[in-house]
Amino acid sequence: MPVNLSAPQAQSLFPVRGVKLGAAEAHVRKPNRKDVLVMQLAAGSRVAGVFTQNRFCAAPVTLCKEHLAKGAAIRALLVNTGNANAGTGEEGLQHARQTCDALAGLMVCSPAQILPFSTGVIMEPLPVDRIVAGLPDCIKDLREDNWLRAAEAIMTTDIVAKGTSRRITLAGNTVTITGIAKGSGMIHPNMATMLGYIATDAAVDQQALDSMIQHAVNRSFNCITVDGDTSTNDALVLIATGQSGHAEIGMESADYGLLRDAITEVAIELAQAIVRDGEGATKFMTIRIENGRDEAECRKIAYAIAHSPLIKTAFFASDPNLGRILAAIGYAGVDDLDVNALKLYLGDVLVAEHGGRAASYQEAQGAAVMKAPEITVRVVLDRGAADVTIWTCDFSYDYVKINADYRS
Amino acid sequence: MPVNLSAPQAQSLFPVRGVKLGAAEAHVRKPNRKDVLVMQLAAGSRVAGVFTQNRFCAAPVTLCKEHLAKGAAIRALLVNTGNANAGTGEEGLQHARQTCDALAGLMVCSPAQILPFSTGVIMEPLPVDRIVAGLPDCIKDLREDNWLRAAEAIMTTDIVAKGTSRRITLAGNTVTITGIAKGSGMIHPNMATMLGYIATDAAVDQQALDSMIQHAVNRSFNCITVDGDTSTNDALVLIATGQSGHAEIGMESADYGLLRDAITEVAIELAQAIVRDGEGATKFMTIRIENGRDEAECRKIAYAIAHSPLIKTAFFASDPNLGRILAAIGYAGVDDLDVNALKLYLGDVLVAEHGGRAASYQEAQGAAVMKAPEITVRVVLDRGAADVTIWTCDFSYDYVKINADYRS
Repeated sequence: MPVNLSAPQAQSLFPVRGVKLGAAEAHVRKPNRKDVLVMQLAAGSRVAGVFTQNRFCAAPVTLCKEHLAKGAAIRALLVNTGNANAGTGEEGLQHARQTCDALAGLMVCSPAQILPFSTGVIMEPLPVDRIVAGLPDCIKDLREDNWLRAAEAIMTTDIVAKGTSRRITLAGNTVTITGIAKGSGMIHPNMATMLGYIATDAAVDQQALDSMIQHAVNRSFNCITVDGDTSTNDALVLIATGQSGHAEIGMESADYGLLRDAITEVAIELAQAIVRDGEGATKFMTIRIENGRDEAECRKIAYAIAHSPLIKTAFFASDPNLGRILAAIGYAGVDDLDVNALKLYLGDVLVAEHGGRAASYQEAQGAAVMKAPEITVRVVLDRGAADVTIWTCDFSYDYVKINADYRS
Repeated sequence: MPVNLSAPQAQSLFPVRGVKLGAAEAHVRKPNRKDVLVMQLAAGSRVAGVFTQNRFCAAPVTLCKEHLAKGAAIRALLVNTGNANAGTGEEGLQHARQTCDALAGLMVCSPAQILPFSTGVIMEPLPVDRIVAGLPDCIKDLREDNWLRAAEAIMTTDIVAKGTSRRITLAGNTVTITGIAKGSGMIHPNMATMLGYIATDAAVDQQALDSMIQHAVNRSFNCITVDGDTSTNDALVLIATGQSGHAEIGMESADYGLLRDAITEVAIELAQAIVRDGEGATKFMTIRIENGRDEAECRKIAYAIAHSPLIKTAFFASDPNLGRILAAIGYAGVDDLDVNALKLYLGDVLVAEHGGRAASYQEAQGAAVMKAPEITVRVVLDRGAADVTIWTCDFSYDYVKINADYRS
């Protein structure tokens, strides 16, 4: 079950002026579930995207990049679940184009003004006809207060729908930021099998929008991992509709930081929600590496800990198995690391220093920390000023069950 | 259960002239199991070792390196299970020295002529007194035909004892090579929680012996992975007692290659046995990457496949989930990889090409391959002449169970 996570209330996801959402049951893979979503954007909206770095990027990702590069004003996003249209070669690209063509026809815009997204099984042909047949129902369903329905429509192995909102005031105008996301396995930096959509009615120029999404993703979706696998389809999109009535925000605007930070908060909450809903997760783990020489070495150590199946299974068992954590620090690839200089904490408890167990440490203290559903592992390297925090979850029987059964 | 692996017969592990082995029940961690082993080497034996690259290397590893660096003739190896004496700081080093001192006293040699090895739980103080108290029983038990008993004495989570022998003829003399190993989890290149001991009665100079162990380890223990974790204690030792009566083999000797290859065969069989006995393993997977630009990129792709929990759970479920394999190839970190140029095979079946499913591929073919307990995944990159083969196993419920329960 998800760790300290429940679905948002519909009324807690505030509408964003200029964004309408509509979902339909198109039977992409299974009947009786919402599996196609259209997000319609008002004229004048600006869009920025960050996509998977997987060499096998999926057809819709290729098309998204192509459409964004063309610079035509994006007027709609089209998302389907059930089929990822990945590992589908040239035919997959044609299929993705056909869905954009169909939606462009209904919305009276050019196909290059549509961004397509797919998630689900890979290497199966996209059922274009069924998706296209579902589009009129999506259009009929378009409403500004449909965010929860949209969050539900993009779920795959997610147990809980994920969404959150913030409201801030910019130059006397109330600005809303609302985001939804999906994802629960294959989560890793560089955007693994996750889709995230964050929209604001703020007015932001393109350069500032690009800068904000990069800032937000580096502190949120690029700081989470469930199993180290990265997918072919991941994407985070940031939309600014410009409907809130204030002057356009650029890189130099006084309100730039305020808006960027609110967007980043939304991104962090969505990213953490994905980990909390990690496949089979029973614990939410925060891995914090402090006082490293640079962020790169902090990340190496953080991910060595976060990806170790031995550590993840020990945490599942609530076992304060310090040795496995020390071993992971040791093989993280920081060649000149002095293991005698570092300190390891579980929660607030100092558990290891001088290359071994701390003299003050009692196993009962570690056991008490491990019992909680939220656990912080902190490694203080004592060799610099760089810090990195990442979030992950444990590895349970259910992880194996979910992933062994996924296609059945 | 181990995949196509059973314990060797005692008579199939041929004695090596100049090596005597003796084991005892010393109650290092649990009663009623052999947990201390002494291997006594005849005068004139040469020894080469390869050790973990983990920065948290255990105290006995530090001491092994120190003793080998001193160049004193090694006369005995001392192995205990139950406790790894790792993450134990300065005290751990003293403990390891105390065990060497005690054995040196019984064998009338210097402590620097002993190599100590420990495996088991980490960050617990080594019970030196109990190990030392067990040494006289080990000495009493010393026999040349004790290899199976020795293989059993070094087991931890292993289900099956691991050992194999070869005999070759060098200049008219029969030469024996016998090896034993332990390990079933945390297995990764650079020697993860595994101990391996290979002995031959051949006469080999030190340079040739060092060269042979490096050749063997690169083609065996450095080509296996169970869960990607590497341990603090791993070691492979190659012993040449020089008792077989032929002229000493150097780098230029005609028989160098013959002996090296026989040693490598033993190392490969032992390394594969560790994977076959991988924690919770139900499938033995061979990952072969062909026609890469260099070995480094082949290894990146091979390990991305071998370490993916999503692929390992799919193989556990006998699910030919090609998409997960393609995704792993895509995120392996080979930045300029042309995914449209590569071919993916399951067994002999071409399953993907041109960036997607092969037109000829039927899922029933993939399902048939996946049902077998031994599965080969082959990726042909079509961009060079480098090949790499590695071996791994699947990820089952039992992997989680074993590692969640290990300390209980």
